Amino acid sequence: MTCIAMLGYGTVGSGVAELILKNKNRLRKNIKDELILSNVLVRNLEKHKESDNINILTKDIEDIFRGNVDIVVEAMGGVNPAYEYVKRALQLKKHVVTANKDLIAEHGGELLDIANKNGVVLRFEASVGGGIPILKSLSECLVGNNIKGIKAILNGTTNFILSKMSKENMSYEEALKLAQDMGFAEANPESDVMGYDAARKLSILSTMAFEEKVNWKNIKINGITDIDTVDFQYAQGEGFEIKLLAIGEYQDNSIYASVSPVMVRKNSTLGRIENEYNAILIDGDAVGDVVFTGKGAGMFPTASAVFSDIVDIIQNKKEKGILFDYNEASVDTLWRKENKWLLRVNTRNRVDAMAGLSELFPYCKIITKGMYGLEDEVAAFVKSENEAVLDRNIETLREKIDCNNIKKMMMLED
Amino acid sequence: MTCIAMLGYGTVGSGVAELILKNKNRLRKNIKDELILSNVLVRNLEKHKESDNINILTKDIEDIFRGNVDIVVEAMGGVNPAYEYVKRALQLKKHVVTANKDLIAEHGGELLDIANKNGVVLRFEASVGGGIPILKSLSECLVGNNIKGIKAILNGTTNFILSKMSKENMSYEEALKLAQDMGFAEANPESDVMGYDAARKLSILSTMAFEEKVNWKNIKINGITDIDTVDFQYAQGEGFEIKLLAIGEYQDNSIYASVSPVMVRKNSTLGRIENEYNAILIDGDAVGDVVFTGKGAGMFPTASAVFSDIVDIIQNKKEKGILFDYNEASVDTLWRKENKWLLRVNTRNRVDAMAGLSELFPYCKIITKGMYGLEDEVAAFVKSENEAVLDRNIETLREKIDCNNIKKMMMLED
Repeated sequence: MTCIAMLGYGTVGSGVAELILKNKNRLRKNIKDELILSNVLVRNLEKHKESDNINILTKDIEDIFRGNVDIVVEAMGGVNPAYEYVKRALQLKKHVVTANKDLIAEHGGELLDIANKNGVVLRFEASVGGGIPILKSLSECLVGNNIKGIKAILNGTTNFILSKMSKENMSYEEALKLAQDMGFAEANPESDVMGYDAARKLSILSTMAFEEKVNWKNIKINGITDIDTVDFQYAQGEGFEIKLLAIGEYQDNSIYASVSPVMVRKNSTLGRIENEYNAILIDGDAVGDVVFTGKGAGMFPTASAVFSDIVDIIQNKKEKGILFDYNEASVDTLWRKENKWLLRVNTRNRVDAMAGLSELFPYCKIITKGMYGLEDEVAAFVKSENEAVLDRNIETLREKIDCNNIKKMMMLED
Repeated sequence: MTCIAMLGYGTVGSGVAELILKNKNRLRKNIKDELILSNVLVRNLEKHKESDNINILTKDIEDIFRGNVDIVVEAMGGVNPAYEYVKRALQLKKHVVTANKDLIAEHGGELLDIANKNGVVLRFEASVGGGIPILKSLSECLVGNNIKGIKAILNGTTNFILSKMSKENMSYEEALKLAQDMGFAEANPESDVMGYDAARKLSILSTMAFEEKVNWKNIKINGITDIDTVDFQYAQGEGFEIKLLAIGEYQDNSIYASVSPVMVRKNSTLGRIENEYNAILIDGDAVGDVVFTGKGAGMFPTASAVFSDIVDIIQNKKEKGILFDYNEASVDTLWRKENKWLLRVNTRNRVDAMAGLSELFPYCKIITKGMYGLEDEVAAFVKSENEAVLDRNIETLREKIDCNNIKKMMMLED
């Protein structure tokens, strides 16, 4: 018999409770064990008074730690007080399963260390990609590979918004409003639309893939709040979509890590991922490209991943878990390979801008005003040997001509 | 230290040997173990006289069993003598890793049983989907799900042929020839093009997913040898592609299992899988649709999966492996849901055929002769409440009109 205590009884928590109940017989048959949900920590007992589980709910965290609990499931979200509770649970030699990307991105290394020292396991499959089995695949199934790169859509909310902007011609504000109405976006969407959520997930993913700690604060982060319908017109004119892409890639001796809106081919694997779906493309030196797609969030997809972590712990109780105490990686925020970029130069001096662009960039495809009718803009697809050179050229252009703003966006052709 | 013996030193075997060498340091660091390749069984020593591993090659299977071997990697392919060797290895309490779908589809249940009785593990991740981590994902990561259905492209050779027929307008014969020239198809391509290879993989996948033994001999199997360029014209006219699809799906109390050419939307997840790539879509009741894509064969993708099985065994030596001793499933070869189908009626009596079709099928979209110019054919997209009714209607039509052949193909709209 395995006793489970849960911290939090919101969407994820109640999903996990339901899966535990639903899989009772199957677990008994397949792994000869019984899962008992023995305690659930809630903030407000009153709110759950109709729940079937009312007799195991508690407001007192000490009830959780006092009990004879084997595994603590942390489903409260946010860094505090989750951090303190998880730390105490591990120190008390309880295994911990969490879906909390903020907590792992912030304190993963330290918590895994505490877990290892105490002979217990900390698992967090649900923290990246919801129900998509990506962390286990990375750490166990692709163990014979050197991972060369990751390209991923890790945030369902922003992918939903970008899909609606692209397919239904909505403005950013309209699409965000729809996402909020449909429950895909929070009332305060900052963490999603600014790219922080995706960056935390990329930090976890890259740290596991590259076996060096990729601190999420070192990742270059651009959200989608600056994307407008004209960006989509430029992209679509070339057969491209715009996606908020998380990229982790080995470049020489450092790891390029960024979250930003990127143009990808409409018909590419990532270009086709729509609405709330996530996708993760892993490039391993032995396996080649492997792609994982599915719902990156939601009650049951997330609960499915939490549940698999629980079963894993039961089946391998004595095994050491993931190691995460890697050295801090040297993180690079500039793309070092030759690439195409979209530049949008906001200026009243269109002729000078065109002259300047074509002088600075040997490959330069200028989009004429007539196409999308912006009076005060010159746009061009340019090629640059790397991002540092691109940025220098942008600076030169800025000095040369009278312009307000130059916006750049990467264009991935493969 | 873990001693590994290998049976076979062809493409897969040499890939595994290379990965073992390449990952030496990493394994020592991460799992504190050393892998030693101690023996390799080959048929012809002469052929490998230039090999770096010449000193550990042997023609005598007894050398393999005599040694102090922990894990036997079976990389010879085919059912015999692999079956006998694997059985003996398990009885001698050696763990076994194999990439051999024929062996597992034929004898998987018995061999897993022997493994369990002897306290060792039999693993076969590479037998389905090459380097794509699908079996572990199914059995461990999706353990909280009831699997409702599987739709998959499991054979890279046929997918390559169909891609070339569709995109480059090649005939079946031309595309097959190209596949053979490029090394994607064997000189004798029967097992691929007749659908047997995909059916064996579907049998393994379905048996694990549905926890009932889906015997591959009970699967409805149609290969791609009858597909012609006109099929592609009909499909493309509706925005569809043709894929050799392996489908396993719960229908009432039985499992529908088939491998056959199916029309899927050009822009759907499976419609976009091209050339030698494989894709597996799993529909779980908690997680929803999850899709896994990657190279389904080849030296290093396959070796990547074999290697992960080896590491898994080292890390969990004392664990029981997969259970496979399920009851024989009731396998259904008729699709029980309402669906659209393409019917191609080969007849000189076109007017009667059109009249018959429109009388028998309330939904009937007849493709007029002018479109693709076949003088002796009437084609139609029809809807039928299930496949049994469809087949009855086809019989009625056959009796009613003078026709040679009626060809049907399923059209999946979602």
